[in-house]
Amino acid sequence: MIIKLQAGINHTHHQHLLDAIGNKGFKVNEIKTQTSTYLVCIGKAEVDLRTFGHMPGISDIFHVSDEYKLVSRKWKTNYTQIDLGDNVIIGDGNLSIMAGPCSIENEQQVLNTIQHLKDNNVKIMRGGVFKPRSSPYAFRGLGIDGLKMWYQLCKENGIKIITEVMQVSQITDMYEYVDVFQVGARNTQNFNLLDELGKVDKPVMIKRGISGTIEELLYSAEYVFSAGNEKIVLCERGIRTYEKASRNTFDINAIPLLKDKTHLPVIADPSHGIGIREFVEPIALAAAVAGADGIIYETHEIPEKAASDGQQTLNFAESAQLIRKLNSLSAIRD
Amino acid sequence: MIIKLQAGINHTHHQHLLDAIGNKGFKVNEIKTQTSTYLVCIGKAEVDLRTFGHMPGISDIFHVSDEYKLVSRKWKTNYTQIDLGDNVIIGDGNLSIMAGPCSIENEQQVLNTIQHLKDNNVKIMRGGVFKPRSSPYAFRGLGIDGLKMWYQLCKENGIKIITEVMQVSQITDMYEYVDVFQVGARNTQNFNLLDELGKVDKPVMIKRGISGTIEELLYSAEYVFSAGNEKIVLCERGIRTYEKASRNTFDINAIPLLKDKTHLPVIADPSHGIGIREFVEPIALAAAVAGADGIIYETHEIPEKAASDGQQTLNFAESAQLIRKLNSLSAIRD
Amino acid sequence: MIIKLQAGINHTHHQHLLDAIGNKGFKVNEIKTQTSTYLVCIGKAEVDLRTFGHMPGISDIFHVSDEYKLVSRKWKTNYTQIDLGDNVIIGDGNLSIMAGPCSIENEQQVLNTIQHLKDNNVKIMRGGVFKPRSSPYAFRGLGIDGLKMWYQLCKENGIKIITEVMQVSQITDMYEYVDVFQVGARNTQNFNLLDELGKVDKPVMIKRGISGTIEELLYSAEYVFSAGNEKIVLCERGIRTYEKASRNTFDINAIPLLKDKTHLPVIADPSHGIGIREFVEPIALAAAVAGADGIIYETHEIPEKAASDGQQTLNFAESAQLIRKLNSLSAIRD
Amino acid sequence: MIIKLQAGINHTHHQHLLDAIGNKGFKVNEIKTQTSTYLVCIGKAEVDLRTFGHMPGISDIFHVSDEYKLVSRKWKTNYTQIDLGDNVIIGDGNLSIMAGPCSIENEQQVLNTIQHLKDNNVKIMRGGVFKPRSSPYAFRGLGIDGLKMWYQLCKENGIKIITEVMQVSQITDMYEYVDVFQVGARNTQNFNLLDELGKVDKPVMIKRGISGTIEELLYSAEYVFSAGNEKIVLCERGIRTYEKASRNTFDINAIPLLKDKTHLPVIADPSHGIGIREFVEPIALAAAVAGADGIIYETHEIPEKAASDGQQTLNFAESAQLIRKLNSLSAIRD
Repeated sequence: MIIKLQAGINHTHHQHLLDAIGNKGFKVNEIKTQTSTYLVCIGKAEVDLRTFGHMPGISDIFHVSDEYKLVSRKWKTNYTQIDLGDNVIIGDGNLSIMAGPCSIENEQQVLNTIQHLKDNNVKIMRGGVFKPRSSPYAFRGLGIDGLKMWYQLCKENGIKIITEVMQVSQITDMYEYVDVFQVGARNTQNFNLLDELGKVDKPVMIKRGISGTIEELLYSAEYVFSAGNEKIVLCERGIRTYEKASRNTFDINAIPLLKDKTHLPVIADPSHGIGIREFVEPIALAAAVAGADGIIYETHEIPEKAASDGQQTLNFAESAQLIRKLNSLSAIRD
Repeated sequence: MIIKLQAGINHTHHQHLLDAIGNKGFKVNEIKTQTSTYLVCIGKAEVDLRTFGHMPGISDIFHVSDEYKLVSRKWKTNYTQIDLGDNVIIGDGNLSIMAGPCSIENEQQVLNTIQHLKDNNVKIMRGGVFKPRSSPYAFRGLGIDGLKMWYQLCKENGIKIITEVMQVSQITDMYEYVDVFQVGARNTQNFNLLDELGKVDKPVMIKRGISGTIEELLYSAEYVFSAGNEKIVLCERGIRTYEKASRNTFDINAIPLLKDKTHLPVIADPSHGIGIREFVEPIALAAAVAGADGIIYETHEIPEKAASDGQQTLNFAESAQLIRKLNSLSAIRD
Repeated sequence: MIIKLQAGINHTHHQHLLDAIGNKGFKVNEIKTQTSTYLVCIGKAEVDLRTFGHMPGISDIFHVSDEYKLVSRKWKTNYTQIDLGDNVIIGDGNLSIMAGPCSIENEQQVLNTIQHLKDNNVKIMRGGVFKPRSSPYAFRGLGIDGLKMWYQLCKENGIKIITEVMQVSQITDMYEYVDVFQVGARNTQNFNLLDELGKVDKPVMIKRGISGTIEELLYSAEYVFSAGNEKIVLCERGIRTYEKASRNTFDINAIPLLKDKTHLPVIADPSHGIGIREFVEPIALAAAVAGADGIIYETHEIPEKAASDGQQTLNFAESAQLIRKLNSLSAIRD
Repeated sequence: MIIKLQAGINHTHHQHLLDAIGNKGFKVNEIKTQTSTYLVCIGKAEVDLRTFGHMPGISDIFHVSDEYKLVSRKWKTNYTQIDLGDNVIIGDGNLSIMAGPCSIENEQQVLNTIQHLKDNNVKIMRGGVFKPRSSPYAFRGLGIDGLKMWYQLCKENGIKIITEVMQVSQITDMYEYVDVFQVGARNTQNFNLLDELGKVDKPVMIKRGISGTIEELLYSAEYVFSAGNEKIVLCERGIRTYEKASRNTFDINAIPLLKDKTHLPVIADPSHGIGIREFVEPIALAAAVAGADGIIYETHEIPEKAASDGQQTLNFAESAQLIRKLNSLSAIRD
């Protein structure tokens, strides 16, 4: 059961409400987000909502049978929109395109990419400055200085930034230079990181774990929401299976399943989803048709020379063609 | 290496050729299909095709580095078309739609389905009369008498039939009443069945194994081809993974991968691929956009009363809407 | 609910019983095996066993909540023993060892293997004459003539034979020369084959499917049992997972799980379970300690020259050492 | 290639060596651990070790073809022993037993557990005070105060503590109260956490990821080692597969595979590996026989009342029986 409180509920009403719910055998989690206050009530009691519904101070009240609560569509049927400012909105019914290199490499690379994005009317650039790598000897990214350089150039050109945060201690330093924090597939269940991102007033995109379930992804979003941040985006990026003909198995089923279960926007990452450059396009188109709110993919002027992930990175001509096709699909999405 | 022989190659030339290839260290498999004769030469020797290319009796010669040979696009870059007669062709660039119930139940059900298909200009009806069931106590289908009834009604209405054959001993009885033999996911590696279907002059659609790899599917097709039957269709129907939010994980990656590796048509089965009625449509659309040559799905006048698989079966209104959307997608596929 | 009938129940009692059960809303499957007759009653009704228990003609009556019935330990808590004759018994509390090559190759190979088995007091020889192979161009085994040769030599030496049957049409030919029919991992759900083996009066060992669930394996056994043959052995041989450091992932959990769920003997196949020669021994020992009733593994005089599976095959010295260790473990199994 | 430097190598020799290796095209990572200094040289050049082997300042030099280097047995064939003090050593050929509750709950629970361990001569207690939970609303552990209480009681009784650290910021606070830091399955690829644990002078046990490969586990150990800490223990705890009859699929294959690939000790966690109380024992015995250096499992005086994981937790009688059986197996392990 979720109870949304009225703004400015007075102390007495608040206490009456907590007592009444507690008396019914529920454990109450009081969640204050940046916009609202909720009582998330966990318990097995069957209860008639009218028992509480008349009590003063309640804005709205809902049954939510799912184990995850605040991210469920059972109480919030309208889809959430995430506003990045300057009319860049994720989840407004249009397809949000986010493109850029795996790793930020240098100023020239960033400038070339920005030009490519502007030429194709793309508003959000992806890229990594902190890179999680299986081997400690691999390139780990340019770090915070790379982010500052990248941000400066994007700001001058009206482009928004989405980039991965790997640990709690980076959040404060990154905050000013990021439009969307990305939580990577290896950190989907890094609960401390999720808790801290819940305290930040910037959108967070959570990638599905390497072999994470859809339910676990929703729980991870519940962590961020219940810690205070309602601006959450989910991302399907392929799962680990026995099939080795592709890097991951892009779980196209997850797109309609997530759109059914949660009010949060759902983005698809075809680059990691299949991991093979020449097949990124059909997977991107498939995800768009299946209902994704956006596509995030890797592009680089010369993929063969990219610092990482070149084998799944589109060159600018391929990227431009993909954008054209995605735009033509948008027309028939409704 | 694959060598396609000229029709009517004389005995001397034939023998010279076999000797020459054997002398280079290749093991030769002579494959006579219903249309051509091939020498599939297995070996590790590096060989210059010109060594044999001039020899009399050779129609064409190709390197094929894949372990599967005759189904590879390395030697046959043009996609194969499967002609069912009456201008019903699979793999001609249009989307082939195959729809019908999981199980054939009775005459009325068949008639209703046929009417639905005709109303929507669908030419191929799917349905099962031999049903593989995990439990021996479950409904196993109407059997050969059901097939005959079904065939009669389809024939009168110009509808083609695709249906599953479960074992070698059924082939002869079924032959006259089937337009496409379907090999089910539990029989993808039933090599005896594949061998026997290779001797039949009817198309065969092979479903990917429950946890089959893409390579194993191609090998299974190689069985049918090398036993003599070139009319093969492949079908992606979802794979078994850890994710239990859907019945299977539809492997959208398999569509572009198969279209790259083989010249055979590739069909998608979204009904089994996700296993949940309300999400069959987005998966079907996704597969079509990703390059599938056709869609096979389950429909029934009253899915709630279907003898099997009702939870993933569309009613006729949903089916009609899916067909409309698939047709509108076809327009932008090129 | 399972009702075991008294031998020689008279017609009237029989009919009364069927009527009474049907009236309670159960669907009745009457199962005649080589030793007994059972009524397997499928339905959702809650029923007090005493309702029927007093009726004449009933030998015993049990609730079985599992979906599989006759193979469940819910009605038969004593473990089943499979008697191959000459005091060779599977499931009597001792560890049954079955060893031999992947493929039967020739007389000398068979003689050498028999000698090795006799030297180590092993009573059952494994080997293949019909080989399921992914590629149609690979060696498919010596066939029925190889089986006859092999059988003759085993018979002279008091060794029992377990070997794979791939299709229904082979059963009759093989019958005389086989002590245990093996159903391979690709045929676990070849229901026609299971049905036919249910009519045979020889033991059947069913391997778990390549990505089969434990429940599916039990259902497959239910097919054989319900078709009339109670002499069934199950075999864990590893499952397909994302991990490619080993050929399969031997599911050690399956051993105690199966011993809990079914009264049938459970054999472990460490050769396929890990697929790497030097690690077959620890997996065999682990399976034995975990409760397996036997171990089946591949051994060959010169594994490097084996016609198939050499990379997972023990030489005779390694095999002898494994047997010694298995025997020493047996001592502490209780 | 790994080069172990002599302690106190002088600056000139050091520089000559770096130059010589760089000139051969290798990238050099200089690794200072708490005991030694290594040059981990990454590159594709084929090199004769004698090229460098004579140079002053080198203690030893090895080819290591594995992608992971310092944790490989290719350069260190002797198995590593981890000394916890007071003659408690992991990896000395004996089986290390680590037992205790999932969550530390209160002083009485700790005292009861300690008594149980002492009664059975177990030296290491497991337990959680920071609990990673899928749902933000679940019990997350007693935190640092719980750890201090637990530590005090263990210290008085000569028991060592192994417990999970979830994030970098906890390390300093926990340091004094922990004998072995445990990295949980959701943090196996939390590279920042691994880096920081590499700077700590306490042993670290890394659990395999929820669907981590064996190679990824070795890479994670390489992170800790290359950041300075050689005291690393690995733990197999089951992987995520399609099979849902058990909580995870305990990968018994991983035990001999890891013992072959790395010199680090390998511990088995049968509690999470199968997740069902009555089958923890056979999995523990299997792991011991397969070569594990130790067993970590969950025990609680009254599992039914445990704050978490009760369904896979042994009571003290079951625990005592398991210890007896493990000890009797130890006798035959060599």
